[in-house]
Amino acid sequence: MTDRQMRRKMQNAATAALRLATLSASQKKRVLDRFANLVWAERATLLRSNKKDLYRAEKSLSPPMFARLKLDEAKIKTLRDGILEVAKAPDPVHRVVDRMELDRGLWLEKRTVPIGVIAVIFESRPDVIPQILSLFLKSGNAGLLKGGREARETNRAFMKIIERLNREFDFLPASWAQLFLERRDVEQILKHDETVNLVIPRGSNALVRSIMRKTKIPVLGHADGVCHLYWDKSADFATVRRVVIDAKTQYPAVCNAVETLLVHKSRMRELRELLRDLERREVKIFGDSMVGAPRVRDWHTEYGDLALSVRVVKSLDEAIDHINRYGSHHTDGILTRDPRAQAKFLAGVDSATLAVNASTRFADGYRFGMGAEVGISTNKIHARGPVGVEGLVTHQYILVGKGHIVSDYVANGKGHVARRFIHRRVNR
Amino acid sequence: MTDRQMRRKMQNAATAALRLATLSASQKKRVLDRFANLVWAERATLLRSNKKDLYRAEKSLSPPMFARLKLDEAKIKTLRDGILEVAKAPDPVHRVVDRMELDRGLWLEKRTVPIGVIAVIFESRPDVIPQILSLFLKSGNAGLLKGGREARETNRAFMKIIERLNREFDFLPASWAQLFLERRDVEQILKHDETVNLVIPRGSNALVRSIMRKTKIPVLGHADGVCHLYWDKSADFATVRRVVIDAKTQYPAVCNAVETLLVHKSRMRELRELLRDLERREVKIFGDSMVGAPRVRDWHTEYGDLALSVRVVKSLDEAIDHINRYGSHHTDGILTRDPRAQAKFLAGVDSATLAVNASTRFADGYRFGMGAEVGISTNKIHARGPVGVEGLVTHQYILVGKGHIVSDYVANGKGHVARRFIHRRVNR
Repeated sequence: MTDRQMRRKMQNAATAALRLATLSASQKKRVLDRFANLVWAERATLLRSNKKDLYRAEKSLSPPMFARLKLDEAKIKTLRDGILEVAKAPDPVHRVVDRMELDRGLWLEKRTVPIGVIAVIFESRPDVIPQILSLFLKSGNAGLLKGGREARETNRAFMKIIERLNREFDFLPASWAQLFLERRDVEQILKHDETVNLVIPRGSNALVRSIMRKTKIPVLGHADGVCHLYWDKSADFATVRRVVIDAKTQYPAVCNAVETLLVHKSRMRELRELLRDLERREVKIFGDSMVGAPRVRDWHTEYGDLALSVRVVKSLDEAIDHINRYGSHHTDGILTRDPRAQAKFLAGVDSATLAVNASTRFADGYRFGMGAEVGISTNKIHARGPVGVEGLVTHQYILVGKGHIVSDYVANGKGHVARRFIHRRVNR
Repeated sequence: MTDRQMRRKMQNAATAALRLATLSASQKKRVLDRFANLVWAERATLLRSNKKDLYRAEKSLSPPMFARLKLDEAKIKTLRDGILEVAKAPDPVHRVVDRMELDRGLWLEKRTVPIGVIAVIFESRPDVIPQILSLFLKSGNAGLLKGGREARETNRAFMKIIERLNREFDFLPASWAQLFLERRDVEQILKHDETVNLVIPRGSNALVRSIMRKTKIPVLGHADGVCHLYWDKSADFATVRRVVIDAKTQYPAVCNAVETLLVHKSRMRELRELLRDLERREVKIFGDSMVGAPRVRDWHTEYGDLALSVRVVKSLDEAIDHINRYGSHHTDGILTRDPRAQAKFLAGVDSATLAVNASTRFADGYRFGMGAEVGISTNKIHARGPVGVEGLVTHQYILVGKGHIVSDYVANGKGHVARRFIHRRVNR
């Protein structure tokens, strides 16, 4: 695509975003209900397109990637139900979150509004399109979507449904959802920091890191998930065993699986037992000199696999320092029965999610009750931790007066008495 | 400073931030009360240092810059009162903003926490140091401060007070507030995106723009303030006159002063009258071909002075398009008596603050009832519009269970029935 063509597409997205921001809750609900029904009604077409992708990808993709790429009727049903959930949820925009009487007749309102234009860059999963676009429509944001090449046909089939919605609902701006197919398109999009307000990369660490390096646009997400569990001297061993095994083995490829276990030196005997248990579950152990396993190469390592770093520490303080130093500030937990140790851990560890006597694997938008998840952020600003639809809105101040001017509130030193603000907050 | 020295300083700031995050509300209040008293008690020293700066700057600074640099007893009193206000305000961190029972015995809390390390880069005003540092201490953030060279002595005198606080309160980490003096220091700080979580530039558009260009760290602020007023066909002329004159002349150098007036074509006769009025107040008028004044060179212009661009438009839609296209999304207003025009303007203009029948000059943290202002942001994410202390905090999720694991919530297809989440929200 030429730079000029891309610029035009970005302008169209910006114009569409302004239009989407004005849609009413009921207009959006009608589109979302219809979207859900069309996804189900067109399942044969979707599966046919998906078969083409699968056929082409069979030899090149690893089995887990292949499984992610594959659609089936059950997955399509889940997608439909997901869109219906989004349709039913309360409108996240135009909510008044604060209201203040600044002075007689001068009112200030803070309300939620869409962010604008958001780019999403994702790998093989074709179900990202219906999930993300339902959230974007709900929150009034225009989307620029770059899917993986391997899911090209399926992605196109989903976009056909979007085009049909655009024809059926004439209040929908044509360019509110645009699909891009080439890797080069991403490079171009990432340069449009004047138009694109946010980038959400969903995929491998390498993908996220390369995007963060390349753009001035704010990126919502996380590059690493080096999560820790600290086994405190007071912890109940049965709990330790349950939680460590779950956090390491239930789904080791994901970002919230545990990568490093820190163990208080008083628990060495039970540690041997736990490590045997983990090894029976095919977990490879790497450790410090106390552990009696191959040495850890780098405490920053995210295995994303059945492997675990283990370190013996002398104190809770040492554990906290280790986590703040080597972790990725994503999700870290403590296993303890001591309320003081719990409080100290919660006050001292600087991560998006902290877990006490619970698996790190819970850190996820769906499990955290947000309905749908946009991503998990390790940013310190805007949105941190699992992000739901509230991460897709920003706010705007609305000031309504009756000819109020600032001069009236400023003493001019010539006998003019300045008015004073009331600043009375209501409905909060 | 060598890169190694700077790295050490950044590490100290990060360590200090972790410590600050654990301070209690009452510890912080004690420090802030003492800070306020010391600022007042040391006023003679502060004024003496300020005199040295003034003496050196006399020939090089413009009269308004010189006025900003100058401290006097009244200003110091205002600073003291400001710090006491901050001391009295509720603690912005460790507030529980959401609480949910995910399942029996598994609780999720969302609480506010400090952001971490924040760099503030500012020009001649030495009163920034006590203002910003009181807000930073209150919100538990470590500060890296780069002040203008012209205020060097005054800034150092304020830092002496901080050093005294650090000696008096041994729970204060030594490096929670660091002052930098050289322009080169800024270049180095802006590279530490791993440590510095946010940059707040306070100063000229050129300063802000150069910082935004140079760093990967999120920047809170605004480069431009191209603010508009739209004079709708239904507006009351007396209101138009009051508001336009205030928005243009009350303090033309600031970002929320109006730069462009858009006028509905039906109000040409009164426009002549208003323009004569403005010209009597020494406002230079630039316009389109209808206005009968020198032609506007560029509708993006921020005069920051007694000058105004004027454009005649055929409709409200044309005005909205103009603002979205040429504005800086800072503060824009409509003057109208028509509720439909008001609603359309509020739905269609994509700016941080929208004003109806009120001066754009109100867009400011103090006037918006936030107590102290950190800055005004035209970012779409994190904080938008005037930003108070809530822009200095982020949040953290705390999950507390009793050995809860994710496997229990996942069907394994071997007859194991998955537990279901309750997701019951409380106290919100």
